[in-house]
Amino acid sequence: MLEQLKEEVFQANLELPKHGLVKFTWGNASAVDRENGLFVIKPSGLDYEAMKASDMVVVDLDGNVVEGDLNPSSDMLTHAVLYKHFPQIGGVVHTHSTWATIWAQAGLDVPAMGTTHADTFYGSVPCARTLTQEEIDRGYEAETGHVIVETFKERKLDALEIPGVLLHGHGPFTWGEDVKTAVTNSVVLDEISKLNLFTRELNHFAQELPQRILDKHYLRKHGENAYYGQN
Amino acid sequence: MLEQLKEEVFQANLELPKHGLVKFTWGNASAVDRENGLFVIKPSGLDYEAMKASDMVVVDLDGNVVEGDLNPSSDMLTHAVLYKHFPQIGGVVHTHSTWATIWAQAGLDVPAMGTTHADTFYGSVPCARTLTQEEIDRGYEAETGHVIVETFKERKLDALEIPGVLLHGHGPFTWGEDVKTAVTNSVVLDEISKLNLFTRELNHFAQELPQRILDKHYLRKHGENAYYGQN
Amino acid sequence: MLEQLKEEVFQANLELPKHGLVKFTWGNASAVDRENGLFVIKPSGLDYEAMKASDMVVVDLDGNVVEGDLNPSSDMLTHAVLYKHFPQIGGVVHTHSTWATIWAQAGLDVPAMGTTHADTFYGSVPCARTLTQEEIDRGYEAETGHVIVETFKERKLDALEIPGVLLHGHGPFTWGEDVKTAVTNSVVLDEISKLNLFTRELNHFAQELPQRILDKHYLRKHGENAYYGQN
Amino acid sequence: MLEQLKEEVFQANLELPKHGLVKFTWGNASAVDRENGLFVIKPSGLDYEAMKASDMVVVDLDGNVVEGDLNPSSDMLTHAVLYKHFPQIGGVVHTHSTWATIWAQAGLDVPAMGTTHADTFYGSVPCARTLTQEEIDRGYEAETGHVIVETFKERKLDALEIPGVLLHGHGPFTWGEDVKTAVTNSVVLDEISKLNLFTRELNHFAQELPQRILDKHYLRKHGENAYYGQN
Repeated sequence: MLEQLKEEVFQANLELPKHGLVKFTWGNASAVDRENGLFVIKPSGLDYEAMKASDMVVVDLDGNVVEGDLNPSSDMLTHAVLYKHFPQIGGVVHTHSTWATIWAQAGLDVPAMGTTHADTFYGSVPCARTLTQEEIDRGYEAETGHVIVETFKERKLDALEIPGVLLHGHGPFTWGEDVKTAVTNSVVLDEISKLNLFTRELNHFAQELPQRILDKHYLRKHGENAYYGQN
Repeated sequence: MLEQLKEEVFQANLELPKHGLVKFTWGNASAVDRENGLFVIKPSGLDYEAMKASDMVVVDLDGNVVEGDLNPSSDMLTHAVLYKHFPQIGGVVHTHSTWATIWAQAGLDVPAMGTTHADTFYGSVPCARTLTQEEIDRGYEAETGHVIVETFKERKLDALEIPGVLLHGHGPFTWGEDVKTAVTNSVVLDEISKLNLFTRELNHFAQELPQRILDKHYLRKHGENAYYGQN
Repeated sequence: MLEQLKEEVFQANLELPKHGLVKFTWGNASAVDRENGLFVIKPSGLDYEAMKASDMVVVDLDGNVVEGDLNPSSDMLTHAVLYKHFPQIGGVVHTHSTWATIWAQAGLDVPAMGTTHADTFYGSVPCARTLTQEEIDRGYEAETGHVIVETFKERKLDALEIPGVLLHGHGPFTWGEDVKTAVTNSVVLDEISKLNLFTRELNHFAQELPQRILDKHYLRKHGENAYYGQN
Repeated sequence: MLEQLKEEVFQANLELPKHGLVKFTWGNASAVDRENGLFVIKPSGLDYEAMKASDMVVVDLDGNVVEGDLNPSSDMLTHAVLYKHFPQIGGVVHTHSTWATIWAQAGLDVPAMGTTHADTFYGSVPCARTLTQEEIDRGYEAETGHVIVETFKERKLDALEIPGVLLHGHGPFTWGEDVKTAVTNSVVLDEISKLNLFTRELNHFAQELPQRILDKHYLRKHGENAYYGQN
């Protein structure tokens, strides 16, 4: 079942090491089929070289395995919670990519300091808090998803306008309308994390992008008046 | 029409990801045919893997598409303004290359701190100001070109002696007598941006290159008494 | 003799430059056969391109060469001491990998600042002291091993829970249940060294990971209640 | 003439971009034939892809071209002066490699902070002063060589014990008993420049390597009691 989605998810997972975002098995990508309420995710801890499209695991939005002989990614329940609470998204990616992980370890939001950021993220990328002991005991991976959802709700953020988050002390999650876009957003998030870190090193007083430039760049690529690309 | 120039522009665009200056479609290169008053530029948002020489778009210096089925790069009007006001230049390149973008985000000129810089840029590479709301409303891309031209006029800079600029909060534009040189200048600008950032990290009191060394290195490669290379 | 172990050690040594941990011949990997009390190690100073599995040298735990025409790695006696005093380990790797070496040169323990660290190292990676003149005279390489063992004993560390160490002014040693795991642990140690350095640059007040998150991540991958991977 | 030396020099020049030390034509390697008092050097400004072994230029120690249709590297006279004044050396390499150039731009000696350094350089790598206007007028490239020689004489350094130098505001020169070793020394100098820069970033109080460790590491690889490798 869902053979095409499995192929997409398989390819998306392979893209992660190609873009230098993932070493060994430190990443996972998934995509959802909204009609059937199912998503497809990478199996846990499998070498990227040995992995086949048919190894992808099919899971429902409560995290029950529907098809597949292998254990799904240990982060599967985080993906499930994101699909449940962000109905606009079609794909999710988790990595420990170097520069985004550095901001996550620093416990800081990534501010919008340039148009590379503004072309994809319409404002700061938030850093979500660490889990309490109680939340860890209740279920680490599902609660991680709930803390992300809580962060977006409290800050009144739109999940498609800010298609990513940092987990304090851990690393980034990104998403998008499909899994290919989620991968692209992981690449962008890592690059802007690098740009902004060294911008601050170079000039401690560097400012965030003026709102008018943030608007211009985000809106020339997204929304009804977008004029970037061939559409 | 302009088949050879299309091929040159196509190859120049492919060089950008090869040199690590561009991810995805975040860059554009163009070249001008001065006799016909036309230039050739990359189409907007097209994957580099899928792109062919015949996809290049032909535009006049007012930005009217003369030939091509695809939309030109969204930054096309910036290129047009540069060709109009800098009659010595033959090619233009725009990227979000990491280290040059960091200086752009920091809002700082790149000072001439070494001979790697002096071999190509005869002084600081200026950082041009952000656009006002009024300029954005009038036309973001054309006005970006005008701000570059304004910067060179106010600072009395020669576009061939300083073949590049940073846009505050955005990234670099470079140019040259042809598009191949414009690509080379983008590589140089990114490398000197990296060198200078870490020079300042290592020694906060590091000085700019003495004028006599700047002169010596620039002039042994450029101008009538140059003696570098095989000419 | 030990043909399979030679092949494993040979492959492990080739992995080091592939992962960017080693330039030229600046690294060495070994694996032990506990039943026979012998270990297999890379020869000294041989080009990785020219090296064959049959060039691997077989040594006993006192450092006597048992088989092989070539000199073993000059660090061989350090490996021997580690195998003698850490009976749980099956493989050892030494490199001068960039980021771990930077922490070694700085003379600092690598603190557990993120889950990338906690997935492999259950706490700080210690930096062992430099040798005294007397120790150097007694035998630099064997005494280096003894200083590592002393460090683990004084700090009451378990060699499998903290499968690596820094040598002050020198670089990292890692180990694991087998040589493949020792290589993986070298990759992890270098990456967390990079992550933590820039985390501190970005936020001088960044904290170590809370104990509850360290526990959760280490224990979901290691020990009897682990649930990561396919086992 | 000197066909084998041409091949060695050609290969050494190709190694420079392979090791990431050189972009475009920003580097040059040469080797000397002491019996004939001639050296072989890369031609000036030629693309590495187009270059052949037969393009190498033969020059005498006063810098007169003895064989070859192409102009020699514009830095040829610096090489000539080094061969004349350092009779122990057989090969010379000049690059603008990133991390060594950063120390050159910072105008600082590279201190011996680790064993990666001590395995090749027996103490700090000196940074030579910039040339005066008078020296530039007298002949920039030859005088650059003289300033290097002056630096070694004033500091009482042995050119084989410290096989490299930084030129303030410019970049590194390295050398060795042959050109292959000179290339290796360029790789080492760039790597230790990177290691030491970030060591200082991480720990402003990091110390130089104790003399006893510097001695041990340098002397286990060099001199009559060396025991590294297969000799």
